[in-house]
Amino acid sequence: MPSWIDSANEAGCDFPVQNLPFGVFSKGSEQPRCCSAIGNRVIDLAALEEASVLDAGGDGSVFGEPSLNAFMALGPKSWASVRARLTSLLRKDGDPALRESVALKGKTLVPMDQVQMHMPFQVADYTDFYSAKQHAFNVGTMFRGPENALPLNYLHIPIGYNGRASSVVVSGTEFRRPLGQLKAPDADAPRFGPCERLDFELEMGAVVGTPSTFGEPVSVAEADEMIFGYVLLNDWSARDIQAWEYVPLGPFQAKATATTISPWVVAKAALEPFRAPAPEREKPLLPYLDDPAPRNYSITLETALQPEGQAESRLSQTNAKYLYYSAAQQLAHHTSSGCPMRTGDLLGSGTISGPDKAQWGSLLELSWGGKEPFALAKGGERSFLEDGDTLTLRGWCEGDGYHIGFGECAGKVLAALNAK
Amino acid sequence: MPSWIDSANEAGCDFPVQNLPFGVFSKGSEQPRCCSAIGNRVIDLAALEEASVLDAGGDGSVFGEPSLNAFMALGPKSWASVRARLTSLLRKDGDPALRESVALKGKTLVPMDQVQMHMPFQVADYTDFYSAKQHAFNVGTMFRGPENALPLNYLHIPIGYNGRASSVVVSGTEFRRPLGQLKAPDADAPRFGPCERLDFELEMGAVVGTPSTFGEPVSVAEADEMIFGYVLLNDWSARDIQAWEYVPLGPFQAKATATTISPWVVAKAALEPFRAPAPEREKPLLPYLDDPAPRNYSITLETALQPEGQAESRLSQTNAKYLYYSAAQQLAHHTSSGCPMRTGDLLGSGTISGPDKAQWGSLLELSWGGKEPFALAKGGERSFLEDGDTLTLRGWCEGDGYHIGFGECAGKVLAALNAK
Repeated sequence: MPSWIDSANEAGCDFPVQNLPFGVFSKGSEQPRCCSAIGNRVIDLAALEEASVLDAGGDGSVFGEPSLNAFMALGPKSWASVRARLTSLLRKDGDPALRESVALKGKTLVPMDQVQMHMPFQVADYTDFYSAKQHAFNVGTMFRGPENALPLNYLHIPIGYNGRASSVVVSGTEFRRPLGQLKAPDADAPRFGPCERLDFELEMGAVVGTPSTFGEPVSVAEADEMIFGYVLLNDWSARDIQAWEYVPLGPFQAKATATTISPWVVAKAALEPFRAPAPEREKPLLPYLDDPAPRNYSITLETALQPEGQAESRLSQTNAKYLYYSAAQQLAHHTSSGCPMRTGDLLGSGTISGPDKAQWGSLLELSWGGKEPFALAKGGERSFLEDGDTLTLRGWCEGDGYHIGFGECAGKVLAALNAK
Repeated sequence: MPSWIDSANEAGCDFPVQNLPFGVFSKGSEQPRCCSAIGNRVIDLAALEEASVLDAGGDGSVFGEPSLNAFMALGPKSWASVRARLTSLLRKDGDPALRESVALKGKTLVPMDQVQMHMPFQVADYTDFYSAKQHAFNVGTMFRGPENALPLNYLHIPIGYNGRASSVVVSGTEFRRPLGQLKAPDADAPRFGPCERLDFELEMGAVVGTPSTFGEPVSVAEADEMIFGYVLLNDWSARDIQAWEYVPLGPFQAKATATTISPWVVAKAALEPFRAPAPEREKPLLPYLDDPAPRNYSITLETALQPEGQAESRLSQTNAKYLYYSAAQQLAHHTSSGCPMRTGDLLGSGTISGPDKAQWGSLLELSWGGKEPFALAKGGERSFLEDGDTLTLRGWCEGDGYHIGFGECAGKVLAALNAK
């Protein structure tokens, strides 16, 4: 299905007409507003709405908002209708309303290199799961040996914890290396200083579009209907701060410095052709988590590191299909206690590592706890992140003659403040 | 300092002119808006603002909003000026603008029994700490014995975890007993069903008024300036769900059903006369947590349980002064990683238990893990909460001839849904 916008039809383009992801952009000093993407262009959805060429079905302007939340809250019917309308406006043989209006094209299609991307939605609550079994196995093996690697509950429950919504930032945001309490194993007391074991975590994030009700659990199938789309997600982690703080209530400041997401939310509908079955169940799941439908996705995921002023080296390449629990299962579990979900909730998948070392999603794993520094293809090595490092996640699905991309999810580590 | 409103001067009244807490109310079908309290009256702050008798210094209506967030964001100067103005309007010898206007009094002073109280503010992120040493000691003793009761990090770091903002509700909200995964110690696998060890947790909540900046830690003194006020907080807890889920990432669905707060936020300024020193430091604190000023408060706290259709029995009475870490220390620690705070952030203190059994803040402690059922003064006993139970927290400071009260923080447990 080619588009009349040529750049959308090029091989390897992240944003063909089959994708149509959603985000928030601004140009110069203009107000941020909602957009989609086609080829090398951002599509100004607020301009299309204002020209009465696009209607999400909400009250007033939905796409003029500086976040996708109003659109996401309209639910699956609106999402499907907007997607169908955009597809028709952008495919070669579709509705001519945009294609044949020079004025509207000029207003609506903005070269990507002229825009600033913003947080695509306002995060309500942020939850991070632990759903890639290989990652849990790797971490468990480092700390407890391979026999006791997986927590006893792992094969029964989607383990997760609440993260910090205020520190979720959009790709491109630089951040300072965190300060925190660090305690050497042989020290009597902790000291306060810059993190020495700063890491990334390759994850996917599911974005909740429609809410659930206080006190009302939802089924896995209902949960899947609530999901608007997916982002790439990097949950930056201070491994040394975590080691000291996490007993008995879990990670806290080690995960609070920043969590970076891609500026593009790829709609669930665009990923539908790439559904994949869940990994084989080693133990039967309780009925509330059971799901005959394939709710995983086959999404190729890549991590790359660029030291300051040097060339980028790929670290690993894995796939979202390795997740033991799908986002729909995570979400159903999340409501099992009666906990209400809201528009803008973000669910991190957990670090996605595949079976082979080349498929591992963190430096903790790639350097085996810092004991085996990872050699960068373009020179140098890393146990953990250094100041000036830029870490980039990329992700895409390979379709028949097209490619559904997530764009990039990148962040750069700056030097720490002086500890007081 | 008496008020011209007689009910405010009665002995034991929660809301004398020295208190002036903030909340959000509605009457009948009117829109929720901001209020204060005096004696047995709610003060409609939106009406005072509209009559140009009160000005918070913001753009447009600050108190007409259905939450305190806009007012809280204005910061300490606005808070102090509004408090001074309200004090002058309500004290016996103050400004006559309200006292002598029959029309304005009629519009502004609403009997409490005619109003509905709402969530006082929109919760941005909710964090729960673990800052009462006796509670940590009690829980640790149950699971590991008294020698290893306190986690190794306890005397160095304010242990905390991120909670779920979406499930914070206002006093009076009923909720269903949660469903979840439960595993008996001798069972091979978990089952899914209603929680059998449902508990309350007596806590204070600190409410953040002014934000901090991404990447910028704040000092303990700066943190204290950011706090707008305090609420009573009950972090309902499913002990059996928690026991199975919490390894390795901490409590999750066990704490996600509901967290109840009092409708009244008592301003920090009203608590100033009740500052108390922190407990003696058993180990020196790191400089970023050090604080020569007394940042604790002496607040009497009480828990009471009313079985369905029966009389209420007091369970325990304790004091907020037992907290090992103050809210200002918790907040400074929370920003140490660069994590940004926002208007509306809520920080639970952790369960407040004092040294004696009569001062313990949860049924887990009062029934010693369910092994020693707690006898209710008015009949019956409890190991954990039963369906139909109403649990109420109350809190107050005793001043010289007056009493600063928090009102009530109550919630009722309904029967669970049928597990699917």
